[in-house]
Amino acid sequence: MQDTCPTAAPREQSIFFINGYPCKNPTEVNAQDFKSTKLTVAGDTDNYLQSNVTMLTASEFPGLNTLGLSVSRTDLERDGSVPLHSHPRSSELLFVASGVVFAGFVDTNDKIFQTVLRKGDVFVFPKGLLHFCLNGGFERATALSFYNSQNPGVVNIGGVFGFDQERIVNITRSLVTDRDEL
Amino acid sequence: MQDTCPTAAPREQSIFFINGYPCKNPTEVNAQDFKSTKLTVAGDTDNYLQSNVTMLTASEFPGLNTLGLSVSRTDLERDGSVPLHSHPRSSELLFVASGVVFAGFVDTNDKIFQTVLRKGDVFVFPKGLLHFCLNGGFERATALSFYNSQNPGVVNIGGVFGFDQERIVNITRSLVTDRDEL
Amino acid sequence: MQDTCPTAAPREQSIFFINGYPCKNPTEVNAQDFKSTKLTVAGDTDNYLQSNVTMLTASEFPGLNTLGLSVSRTDLERDGSVPLHSHPRSSELLFVASGVVFAGFVDTNDKIFQTVLRKGDVFVFPKGLLHFCLNGGFERATALSFYNSQNPGVVNIGGVFGFDQERIVNITRSLVTDRDEL
Amino acid sequence: MQDTCPTAAPREQSIFFINGYPCKNPTEVNAQDFKSTKLTVAGDTDNYLQSNVTMLTASEFPGLNTLGLSVSRTDLERDGSVPLHSHPRSSELLFVASGVVFAGFVDTNDKIFQTVLRKGDVFVFPKGLLHFCLNGGFERATALSFYNSQNPGVVNIGGVFGFDQERIVNITRSLVTDRDEL
Amino acid sequence: MQDTCPTAAPREQSIFFINGYPCKNPTEVNAQDFKSTKLTVAGDTDNYLQSNVTMLTASEFPGLNTLGLSVSRTDLERDGSVPLHSHPRSSELLFVASGVVFAGFVDTNDKIFQTVLRKGDVFVFPKGLLHFCLNGGFERATALSFYNSQNPGVVNIGGVFGFDQERIVNITRSLVTDRDEL
Amino acid sequence: MQDTCPTAAPREQSIFFINGYPCKNPTEVNAQDFKSTKLTVAGDTDNYLQSNVTMLTASEFPGLNTLGLSVSRTDLERDGSVPLHSHPRSSELLFVASGVVFAGFVDTNDKIFQTVLRKGDVFVFPKGLLHFCLNGGFERATALSFYNSQNPGVVNIGGVFGFDQERIVNITRSLVTDRDEL
Repeated sequence: MQDTCPTAAPREQSIFFINGYPCKNPTEVNAQDFKSTKLTVAGDTDNYLQSNVTMLTASEFPGLNTLGLSVSRTDLERDGSVPLHSHPRSSELLFVASGVVFAGFVDTNDKIFQTVLRKGDVFVFPKGLLHFCLNGGFERATALSFYNSQNPGVVNIGGVFGFDQERIVNITRSLVTDRDEL
Repeated sequence: MQDTCPTAAPREQSIFFINGYPCKNPTEVNAQDFKSTKLTVAGDTDNYLQSNVTMLTASEFPGLNTLGLSVSRTDLERDGSVPLHSHPRSSELLFVASGVVFAGFVDTNDKIFQTVLRKGDVFVFPKGLLHFCLNGGFERATALSFYNSQNPGVVNIGGVFGFDQERIVNITRSLVTDRDEL
Repeated sequence: MQDTCPTAAPREQSIFFINGYPCKNPTEVNAQDFKSTKLTVAGDTDNYLQSNVTMLTASEFPGLNTLGLSVSRTDLERDGSVPLHSHPRSSELLFVASGVVFAGFVDTNDKIFQTVLRKGDVFVFPKGLLHFCLNGGFERATALSFYNSQNPGVVNIGGVFGFDQERIVNITRSLVTDRDEL
Repeated sequence: MQDTCPTAAPREQSIFFINGYPCKNPTEVNAQDFKSTKLTVAGDTDNYLQSNVTMLTASEFPGLNTLGLSVSRTDLERDGSVPLHSHPRSSELLFVASGVVFAGFVDTNDKIFQTVLRKGDVFVFPKGLLHFCLNGGFERATALSFYNSQNPGVVNIGGVFGFDQERIVNITRSLVTDRDEL
Repeated sequence: MQDTCPTAAPREQSIFFINGYPCKNPTEVNAQDFKSTKLTVAGDTDNYLQSNVTMLTASEFPGLNTLGLSVSRTDLERDGSVPLHSHPRSSELLFVASGVVFAGFVDTNDKIFQTVLRKGDVFVFPKGLLHFCLNGGFERATALSFYNSQNPGVVNIGGVFGFDQERIVNITRSLVTDRDEL
Repeated sequence: MQDTCPTAAPREQSIFFINGYPCKNPTEVNAQDFKSTKLTVAGDTDNYLQSNVTMLTASEFPGLNTLGLSVSRTDLERDGSVPLHSHPRSSELLFVASGVVFAGFVDTNDKIFQTVLRKGDVFVFPKGLLHFCLNGGFERATALSFYNSQNPGVVNIGGVFGFDQERIVNITRSLVTDRDEL
């Protein structure tokens, strides 16, 4: 209903709670609200998954508020993976900025759609479906993901009720049987 | 954009594929298109999960087409469960018609919201989030679920990549530590 | 834009008026916000219509706020009826929990779609159209209704400008000419 | 999803039924699809209501298809009225082109909002609510109405189940107790 | 989510900023919130363009808030024009109340759809596309425009980065080569 | 209403015209429908603007159909620019893959929001507003853009009614007064 509505500062968000975020005072909006430099550096991949996802929603990037878009950067070490998860509020478009990425999703008939992606390739994960990506090459890989919601949310099946994270990762990794063939 | 658009017969659906279903010829629409008797009988619960979900989407219930609603019946034997799953296109409102049901969902912060429901109680599962229900009593239980989509879809985490269905069921069952206390 | 946003307490709603309801403080949200026991008992049918509709919108059931769903329970004595009305913001799916219900709607071409429903049957009333239900049997009847809006609203034609409520009821009742035939 | 999609000819609409209308072949679209002259003349008011509403939806005005707008012209003789009705799929903005019009709507709390409108005045009827207009002056009156749906639909309470049209008209007319005071 | 939500007074809008406007206290809403007399008089056309557009959005006409509609009046002197512009949030339906208007739009393939409109004619400009209107006759002309957004917004290409307003006007005017032929 | 609906082949699109595209036969959908390699190579920038935009909508990338997302690649030679334009059906999120880009948009109050972006920076252009980007550095620059529509459309102000393309480019270029300062 307005051109823009950059997210107000956190203290203003806690006066009165609404679905989404209140706007900054319009007189204080400036070009920097619509820019973010938070994706310029790789995230910390020193973890079990050997991967990192840096997500910019309307919370971290004020200009996105009310515009229905968000973005993330995924860094994958050689054996890195982002195991099965879904986004309850958006589809996702993945762009491979460097490296080789093996990505896929599962539809509601339990059919898997998966493929290998190289630098410059794009892939799309439909809204609410389980999907994953993992490094399918021998070098570090980086991908950008775009979402048609300002707050897509993440449903991690690994973290729920103590399911075995290692097992999920191994299963997804096992999908790439022979990297040299990719 | 119209009052109603009951789903056309399957052979008409395969002439030309659209997102959703084409309508019946409007001159042939009648009151029976808006009624279904398919939920009057319990589903077959003679299976590993000891449960059955009979789903009526616009595919099985023509009158739902374009109206943005669907419905299902869940039958749970004494040890029956409907393990963790999500609906990519709708929230769900559960109504307990008989018995005792233990139900819950997990939000995107991995926080669990779960409770016991008795006859006549209602519970709501937000769109796209993982949720479950299981028989929390000593008798058979039946619930009705309503969805704000004509085709909510089901994402089963159990069936994907060979995850252990038994384990998921055991985990959800273990949430009910003492039925007598419920 | 969020997983959930249970309705804030009434006093918080009157600080600042928005379309719909503000949310509770997220730190105070718990499982009970998503459950309601208000439909477990029959409503008071000791009135002219011999019927009662107990409606749970986001106002009475906090967890529904922003989820786009609501629910009601209808109790109909032997001669009870819910005369012609419409919901400006939702379609409705009616489930007969007990008894026999005669239900129908009128489309924008003034064509009537009506039928008899028995225990377990479902019927759907399209958004914004006039519809009714009445007891079509010899026993008390109870139905559950589901709406794809958190606040469907009710437009009663009986109460407007003094139209004759009795007449409306008689007209709808006269649709059931012979109960034994239903 | 496209700039425009003017309604296809009726014979093309009956090959395959969808919600709304199929588009003309894009190569045949021209400026005349986006223009209509059907509101230039008054409708025939020689009827019981002494009024006429000429409605242009995407059916009569091809250019409206998929744009979410429609328009009508209302002509009211000195005693003319458009009795209580609602539009299930749109709000309405009424503009008085000539004469004096008495208009109102009823909200879901049965509260009436009514007023007198003179040439150039505008009034708004919220989506799905019952509303009416009648000539509140001594001369013929003409109004234009705009709807935020390409097919708003009309729910007439007068025509349903034999309600007394005359009575409805008399009730709405009686709201204007003294024309000279308006 | 409510029947109505008339725009709150400006001072209340500045306590807390949301996308759109907060509502008036519901207990203070009355019929005058849904009426506006601001289009009864012609706007001031004593300017370079010899035209005036008086716009009523939810800011100037409280009753429009949350209803998804707005309206404007355009007055065009004999040589008046409203040069190329677009509305980022709505389609527009133009009704010619008096005079002769030459109107057109440009689609995303750079194809122009333009025509002459006389009293009572309607034309539609699709959402987000560049369009214009100018007086195509010898008398003053007045038009009403309706928008399916409560705040359609205006993107003026003339005012951006110093483009030559006169040139734009001359180009649009030159489209009408011979008024007598219209 | 479905998980996916990849765009049908062009010949199937011309049997029957709908808003958007029909789907492929679901039995023929495979993982390659959701992948595109069309952005792996730079577009041809040997033109007046010294820039190229390769757009992937649901027409060029079948898997995007019904998912509400699209993507483009922009290549800018040292003096390259993409002059002022708007997208009638989406906001845009720009990611700088290499080089230095100067980007900005103009809101409906004619206020300009512009800034310099380096590798990895993101910027957002709100729906329907005029925006531009140009090479702000000394090397070739490449950017990816993401849209929350499967067919955002492009409104070029340069190509309409013969406006002077060179002038528009010079104006946008003149915004970067001193590259060394960026």
